Amino acid sequence: MYKIHGDYNSGNCYKLKLMLSLLGQPYQWVPVDILKGETQTPEFLHKNPNGKIPVLEFEDGTCLWESNAILNFLADGSAYLPSDARLRTQVLQWQFFEQYSHEPSVAVARFIQFYLGLPAERAEEHRRKLKEGYRALAVMEQQLQRTPFLVAEQFSIADITLYAYTHVAHQGGFDLTQYPAISSWLERVRAQPGYVGMLD
Amino acid sequence: MYKIHGDYNSGNCYKLKLMLSLLGQPYQWVPVDILKGETQTPEFLHKNPNGKIPVLEFEDGTCLWESNAILNFLADGSAYLPSDARLRTQVLQWQFFEQYSHEPSVAVARFIQFYLGLPAERAEEHRRKLKEGYRALAVMEQQLQRTPFLVAEQFSIADITLYAYTHVAHQGGFDLTQYPAISSWLERVRAQPGYVGMLD
Repeated sequence: MYKIHGDYNSGNCYKLKLMLSLLGQPYQWVPVDILKGETQTPEFLHKNPNGKIPVLEFEDGTCLWESNAILNFLADGSAYLPSDARLRTQVLQWQFFEQYSHEPSVAVARFIQFYLGLPAERAEEHRRKLKEGYRALAVMEQQLQRTPFLVAEQFSIADITLYAYTHVAHQGGFDLTQYPAISSWLERVRAQPGYVGMLD
Repeated sequence: MYKIHGDYNSGNCYKLKLMLSLLGQPYQWVPVDILKGETQTPEFLHKNPNGKIPVLEFEDGTCLWESNAILNFLADGSAYLPSDARLRTQVLQWQFFEQYSHEPSVAVARFIQFYLGLPAERAEEHRRKLKEGYRALAVMEQQLQRTPFLVAEQFSIADITLYAYTHVAHQGGFDLTQYPAISSWLERVRAQPGYVGMLD
């Protein structure tokens, strides 16, 4: 059985929880507290030298890290990852978009507001993150106005990847009512058989 | 023949140039000037709604974006992308590491120093980027002390991905002499048959 080293409130960790629930695969969750420095211990750095969660640990103790890479591993051969080369590349395209253009603003705005309580000295940074986050959300909105899921007609790990922080974007101060296509897409993701919520 | 919309000085664009040269595939390069706003025109946003380079354009006008996703597409079925599922995931792991933990510091420090001439008002940000970048380089160094390439014994697109900005890190103010394993790895990448330099 897989072990997942993670934090229930982290969108990056939730991606794996949602994936394994959709696949109906059992796993053991090992809670890790970032704020207590638990990702920087020698033992944890042995699992992931980059000191970040989540980490997927195999029964033999070997590990994989980077949430979006792990999603590709878990979904391989399932309906959640297309086999066609172009479609697979589009899945990756949205996953790299998430890590570079979406997560650093949408997740960080949430961290500042939801975890830290929006302290005055980070208000300016929070405003900047909102602006960048809205730009990324507009790119998603445009795609979702054309197709029901991010990669054409099929629910895939591209959707899991971007759902993770988008569905809790309001905790960072984002107002999603101006993005109707994103809002209906969030509902379509929640309707997937096997769906589990972040804190369920 | 593929068209690549890109900037010769951009590491993200160079990844595709290097990949196509290693594969011996012809392509047409379409120069794009970011500083002149050429990635924000309606015509360009039709190719990549996220307004970034590089973009790979097919003969029928359809496009793929995100450099690391495109590398997976181009390398599929070649020696540059392992077929084994675990190794493939490790390739992705390093590619996501690059976009999240390496490029935002190593490439941005270079942008501030090399493109902008290190203006005083960005000196503090540059110092922070150097610190974060050295942290990412230390993670690479640790892996390259154990294996000749990032994913085990085999030169792969994981190496192309991280070579792009690492080999010009000195232009951002990084001193690589303290990373002997990275320095020999840079030499091993340069020795690959079909290698082409960033400005060749």
